[in-house]
Amino acid sequence: MNRVEKKQFTIDRYTLENGATIPVTLGYETYGELNEDKSNVVLVAHYFSASSHAAGKYSPEDEAPGYWDHLIGPGKAVDTNKYFVISTDNLANVQEHNPHVITTGPRSINPETGERWGMDFPAYTFRDVAGIQHEFLTKQLGIEKLHAVMGASAGGFISLNWAVHYPDMVERLIGVITNPQNPVITSFTVLQQAMRAIELDPKWQGGNYADGEGPDEGLYLAIQMMNAGAFTAELYEETYKRNSNEQEPYQDIRVKTSYEQQLYDAIKAGAPALDASHWYYTCRATMMHDIAHGIGTLEDALQRIQAKVLMVSCTRDLLQPTVFNRQMVDILKQQGKDAELVEIESLKGHMAGVLDGHLFSEDVERFLNK
Amino acid sequence: MNRVEKKQFTIDRYTLENGATIPVTLGYETYGELNEDKSNVVLVAHYFSASSHAAGKYSPEDEAPGYWDHLIGPGKAVDTNKYFVISTDNLANVQEHNPHVITTGPRSINPETGERWGMDFPAYTFRDVAGIQHEFLTKQLGIEKLHAVMGASAGGFISLNWAVHYPDMVERLIGVITNPQNPVITSFTVLQQAMRAIELDPKWQGGNYADGEGPDEGLYLAIQMMNAGAFTAELYEETYKRNSNEQEPYQDIRVKTSYEQQLYDAIKAGAPALDASHWYYTCRATMMHDIAHGIGTLEDALQRIQAKVLMVSCTRDLLQPTVFNRQMVDILKQQGKDAELVEIESLKGHMAGVLDGHLFSEDVERFLNK
Repeated sequence: MNRVEKKQFTIDRYTLENGATIPVTLGYETYGELNEDKSNVVLVAHYFSASSHAAGKYSPEDEAPGYWDHLIGPGKAVDTNKYFVISTDNLANVQEHNPHVITTGPRSINPETGERWGMDFPAYTFRDVAGIQHEFLTKQLGIEKLHAVMGASAGGFISLNWAVHYPDMVERLIGVITNPQNPVITSFTVLQQAMRAIELDPKWQGGNYADGEGPDEGLYLAIQMMNAGAFTAELYEETYKRNSNEQEPYQDIRVKTSYEQQLYDAIKAGAPALDASHWYYTCRATMMHDIAHGIGTLEDALQRIQAKVLMVSCTRDLLQPTVFNRQMVDILKQQGKDAELVEIESLKGHMAGVLDGHLFSEDVERFLNK
Repeated sequence: MNRVEKKQFTIDRYTLENGATIPVTLGYETYGELNEDKSNVVLVAHYFSASSHAAGKYSPEDEAPGYWDHLIGPGKAVDTNKYFVISTDNLANVQEHNPHVITTGPRSINPETGERWGMDFPAYTFRDVAGIQHEFLTKQLGIEKLHAVMGASAGGFISLNWAVHYPDMVERLIGVITNPQNPVITSFTVLQQAMRAIELDPKWQGGNYADGEGPDEGLYLAIQMMNAGAFTAELYEETYKRNSNEQEPYQDIRVKTSYEQQLYDAIKAGAPALDASHWYYTCRATMMHDIAHGIGTLEDALQRIQAKVLMVSCTRDLLQPTVFNRQMVDILKQQGKDAELVEIESLKGHMAGVLDGHLFSEDVERFLNK
């Protein structure tokens, strides 16, 4: 198991897509060694609720390694004996209270006021995250080529922005459980509806809550929406088992069923690391992911890609349905690009892209040598 | 087109599954004529957001007929030249403000206090709705046999309760986009989460809001959850089109996208007929649908069924996935029952069971003659 450490970088003034200029400090991790001509870089972008902790452990006592540790490491599909892997935290990372996460977002201090930004933090996009990573890699690390950029879900959104906006730099793009445009239905079911749940919580106070007094119930509901969307009916039926014999919820509408309590407790247990306003901003960024924005049509945007492309989709993914991956890869092929789609089967649904790396690790390894 | 009228029946004292005894008045409609030996009855139970208005028009000026008018009428699959079709409103019908709906629920007057029940209204189940219909049909109409009981979604839950709890009376069961147990994931995504959204709205006031001052934003969110769950990604992509060129939502996190505004407006336009506390109670009843409750296992419950069974499932249904229909029909067949499953394909997803009757009308007609 790799031992890893969290580092950080700062860009004093970064101008976001919406025109606002802000100071940015983000955490990052690296695995493997940068070679002399800086030609072995694999950039890994992270998904909605993750962080730059993609692989390894901070200390041997850690319960679990980074989320893609089964894919990234010495001798693994993304072989850190060959590649220098770098991963950064996102803007407004939802794990604002995780001591291993370093991010800039609405809970950060606005240097102009000395107060937290709150809802005055500018709306950010995954185009912005790619742009910040680009400035960090090129200006601070002197990296001019990426052997590959890869990511799952929103990490794939960031990766797609790299391939479209910095086409000269990106040799390979691996997009896992991701699409060039966030599906409209997903924008509603787990993002916009989550934002509205947070807004409905009286403790939201327009995003200006004191530490420890945030809209917890709204946040728990938002997290639950994401959790339920990211798996499948069969997995939920197995995990949150109904009890056909319990009586109390039938007698009193205020009483939770045992399976409701089980999920509520699980979500509450994971919530202390999370911040509602960072969740809120990340929902909006995820909703607004549209690689065609500012370019024209989807075809126009994909036309810019020079990288070889590997897309991996789970056929049971409700958040990023395979049908849109097929459309994307068809367009790329019609444009004469080297593009392929690997479809995997798993009852984990969307989360198969994070949890079931064994189903596509061989494809990733082969593609990195392509 | 049939002209239909709304009628009503009252049961002075009905004891619900949870032990509470309440007076019940519900609306109902009939299509066709009851024959002399009362052997031609088809009972149609309605789904979550519908009413007893299953077919025909109240007046020629009505914009649309009842929801299953393409299935029910003279010469149609459920031929009203042969069958006497009867449909009742549910307890706590969500269309509390629709003048054509007659229901008893939390907005009704509790005769013991002279005030609205609010959250003191007892939790009801679809077992209760079947029980109330049973008492009405047997004691008030003198009906002792059903040629068939049928319903879509929650209407299928009610139909299943008929087949399990009054097996001697039910000759045929037609369950469309429905299951013997509400899937756990569906209990969360469009029901429990909707209840929590309504509760988060400060105007909910524990269900004791004055007329016209209810939790509208919580209710709109609850309705949207149901709408998004009941269709498919492809249908949403077509219906609520993204505009890749709009700028404002990228610049200001408070600005809705055009597709958000479009869905919000559509839902708001339909909401004045709906009541939040009736929605809330119906969510709980739908969540708690488990035909095994109070009996034992799913197999034990299905063992009681004597009716021939036709299940219709849309393979793209996210709320009542086909996988659970296959399990149910397999169990019935193992028990030696006459059971069949018709799988239909439609991008309308769950709502195919309501909107795409042409995909299974021949199966219904054939089954009613079986």
